[in-house]
Amino acid sequence: MNYPSSLKNLIDCFKKLPGVGEKTAERFSLSVLGFDEKLIESFSDSIKDVKYKIKRCSICNNLTESDVCDICRDENRDSSVICVVEEAKNSILFEKMGAYKGKYHILNGLISPLDGVGPEDINIDKLIDRIDSEGVSEVILALKPSIEGETTSLYISKVLSGKGVKVTKIAHGIPMGADIEYIDMLTLEMALSDRKEISDNN
Amino acid sequence: MNYPSSLKNLIDCFKKLPGVGEKTAERFSLSVLGFDEKLIESFSDSIKDVKYKIKRCSICNNLTESDVCDICRDENRDSSVICVVEEAKNSILFEKMGAYKGKYHILNGLISPLDGVGPEDINIDKLIDRIDSEGVSEVILALKPSIEGETTSLYISKVLSGKGVKVTKIAHGIPMGADIEYIDMLTLEMALSDRKEISDNN
Repeated sequence: MNYPSSLKNLIDCFKKLPGVGEKTAERFSLSVLGFDEKLIESFSDSIKDVKYKIKRCSICNNLTESDVCDICRDENRDSSVICVVEEAKNSILFEKMGAYKGKYHILNGLISPLDGVGPEDINIDKLIDRIDSEGVSEVILALKPSIEGETTSLYISKVLSGKGVKVTKIAHGIPMGADIEYIDMLTLEMALSDRKEISDNN
Repeated sequence: MNYPSSLKNLIDCFKKLPGVGEKTAERFSLSVLGFDEKLIESFSDSIKDVKYKIKRCSICNNLTESDVCDICRDENRDSSVICVVEEAKNSILFEKMGAYKGKYHILNGLISPLDGVGPEDINIDKLIDRIDSEGVSEVILALKPSIEGETTSLYISKVLSGKGVKVTKIAHGIPMGADIEYIDMLTLEMALSDRKEISDNN
């Protein structure tokens, strides 16, 4: 004696989503019961579409429905700068910010010897090809400040040295609006060592 | 420049679920990308199934895929007791508890004059029919302890008076394991007025 089988199936599917447990899955499934037909069709179809239509951009490895993603195709963007990120969703974050007008390169992972992930397992080779072929003058590394992120940044900066391309890393420091009292020691140390001079013309 | 359209559609659909905002919808959608084909098909199908297969039980108004729900069909259950609940999910909660062996009646709402919901808008008429036809000896009201819940309980107990059926209400009081210091005043008042004698044979 429990939920009808179709409702039970849906609850089980919702439970596969990150951070969704039994109670939340039940709540989601019961709310689906109240959706109108148009929304049901759209929901059901878009789950399949996401799986079968979305591919990886052949240039930057970003998510796309065509062979080359919108950003790589956009001729108004500065192709001399490439921002290297771990995952597609990181590039979306940069796009939301709006201040970046260069291109992206999605690694789809970070070097992690402990997990058996080496440089050949992530999308670094294609990055090197792009440097050679696209006339790139700067590579911005925007990877997360973890051991894996730092290792990957170091590796990329090494393989790109001698290629005549400037390799930079986004700044780590105190976030805007944060209370300096509650900042962890490592961030404070980074913020101190990465300090910059305040010049008169700034 | 943003997510590919199919991903954007899925994000919009997830945002229709209760308590899901932009960030969570993005996280859910990106995780769907990683689902295997079997799960995708099952997820997509069960959303439609829930909408098109699930009906209301013609007796108790519970969710079911057939005309009469499993509980109403079950001959091992005590049909002389009906537990009246607001929503289908409340009956599931009772089923999980496992101690109740009677039947249910789902009102699908509560009387709420402020929202324009009268006794005729919720499933009370069918309850009265059941009392007359099923040989019911006890109706247990398990509605939430709100103004609407209390109003509905009062209304049902009034319309059932004189029908020779015992009408009871589940107990309100201090929850098990709760710290009595932090209990709200109304609950404490209820717990005091509903106190019961501890007899020697208990």
